[in-house]
Amino acid sequence: MKLTSEQKGRFADEGYIFLPDVFTADEVAVMRGEVPRIFAQRRPENVRERTGDVVRTAFATHTYDPTFAALARHPRMVEPVIDLLGGPAYIHQFKINAKAAFDGDQWQWHQDYGTWSNDDDMPGPHAMNVAVFLDDVTEFNGALMFIPRSHKLGVLEAGHDLQTTSYPLWTIDNDTIRRLVGEGGLVAPKGKAGSVLMFHGNLVHASPGNLSPFDRTIVYVSLNRVDNAIRRFKRPEWIAHRDFRPIEPLPDDCLLTLSKAA
Amino acid sequence: MKLTSEQKGRFADEGYIFLPDVFTADEVAVMRGEVPRIFAQRRPENVRERTGDVVRTAFATHTYDPTFAALARHPRMVEPVIDLLGGPAYIHQFKINAKAAFDGDQWQWHQDYGTWSNDDDMPGPHAMNVAVFLDDVTEFNGALMFIPRSHKLGVLEAGHDLQTTSYPLWTIDNDTIRRLVGEGGLVAPKGKAGSVLMFHGNLVHASPGNLSPFDRTIVYVSLNRVDNAIRRFKRPEWIAHRDFRPIEPLPDDCLLTLSKAA
Repeated sequence: MKLTSEQKGRFADEGYIFLPDVFTADEVAVMRGEVPRIFAQRRPENVRERTGDVVRTAFATHTYDPTFAALARHPRMVEPVIDLLGGPAYIHQFKINAKAAFDGDQWQWHQDYGTWSNDDDMPGPHAMNVAVFLDDVTEFNGALMFIPRSHKLGVLEAGHDLQTTSYPLWTIDNDTIRRLVGEGGLVAPKGKAGSVLMFHGNLVHASPGNLSPFDRTIVYVSLNRVDNAIRRFKRPEWIAHRDFRPIEPLPDDCLLTLSKAA
Repeated sequence: MKLTSEQKGRFADEGYIFLPDVFTADEVAVMRGEVPRIFAQRRPENVRERTGDVVRTAFATHTYDPTFAALARHPRMVEPVIDLLGGPAYIHQFKINAKAAFDGDQWQWHQDYGTWSNDDDMPGPHAMNVAVFLDDVTEFNGALMFIPRSHKLGVLEAGHDLQTTSYPLWTIDNDTIRRLVGEGGLVAPKGKAGSVLMFHGNLVHASPGNLSPFDRTIVYVSLNRVDNAIRRFKRPEWIAHRDFRPIEPLPDDCLLTLSKAA
């Protein structure tokens, strides 16, 4: 999968691109089918919501689940990223965010690179996210909100929020958000399961809770350029990986052949 | 303002109608202009969010603020309601829900008549809500979600939620919501300030929090048919009014003449 120069220009300018139909319904079904088994596990990588016994984030599933190990090396996920980052990439973080029906809580306004820089000492913003939708994302189930063009402002001042949700985050203050939205507006890309959203590590984003009866499962893969590896190992390995070898993409049908073999 | 038979049919069938442009920009500006002064007051009628010192709901503002007293008797608000309820009406509850930018919290799934029946002993579901938008309501700032046709099911079993927000509510369980949405779907009517949303007292609804930098101020007027007055006075008068005299509508320009007189 090659991005067009128009798509690359849009990523550079807006800080994100939305790609519908990257994964087929069959491929989504294979991935979605693994999720209940993963969420049922009691393991430190599975962070729960502050209310109730519902998984909020399952970290590092690619290290123990063969299906997500295949997604982590999938050419449709990896090749555009290498193109956008301008060099070989490794996986800095890999997680499934559940945003479960009824229970899924909000994520406050933040930049991911802010956290990667503050906590992991990642040298530069040569890292980005790929969001793979495993459920339809609609206006009802907590779609991600982006402030377009906010990635051009570098790392914004942030405070360490340890209170408002169950996962610590470096969040940006209200006055700054108001100003940035005044300049760049607000978008919430929505689409069917199998869609992919690629966004810059400095793009400011948030997402509301999910009161709807529809799950909103998204896999977030954070990829970092190999020459930009992190230098501080304060967070657990399953949150900030230390295997800096470049990803070698698998064949295009890797998710389906795996399913047949299993 | 007379509703068409098509609009009345839609209300009967779906449980709600959305009416854009009921109040002009000038009328909205008059009402919106009163809000900061009202929210700045320390009085029992102003219920605050569980997080921070931000007003969530300002009850009974029509009892002390002349502008909202005019809205409470505004013919464009009252006449359609008398038509839909099939008889003269009084105001059971009047409130401004702030859903403030950044801080506005969610409202769980509920029916209003469930609360009016359980708490206030209102005899039948011959009461309804009028939501007057004082801000644009968008996909970003916590639009109300309705389950169409759910008003036809009567009062659903509910539990008294005293925990998840700062205001106690009789809320409906997840399995029931899942089933109702499976049958009726989900809608989130959005529109400009000055729009009006009329909905049945038994229509199941909820609304998410507001993480955006845009306020979402809505006036909710709950009107009850005069022959259906409440019989228990457990809640404060400013939450469940006891003046059962029928509303007599004011002239159509009441919001603007008031403003000139002031």
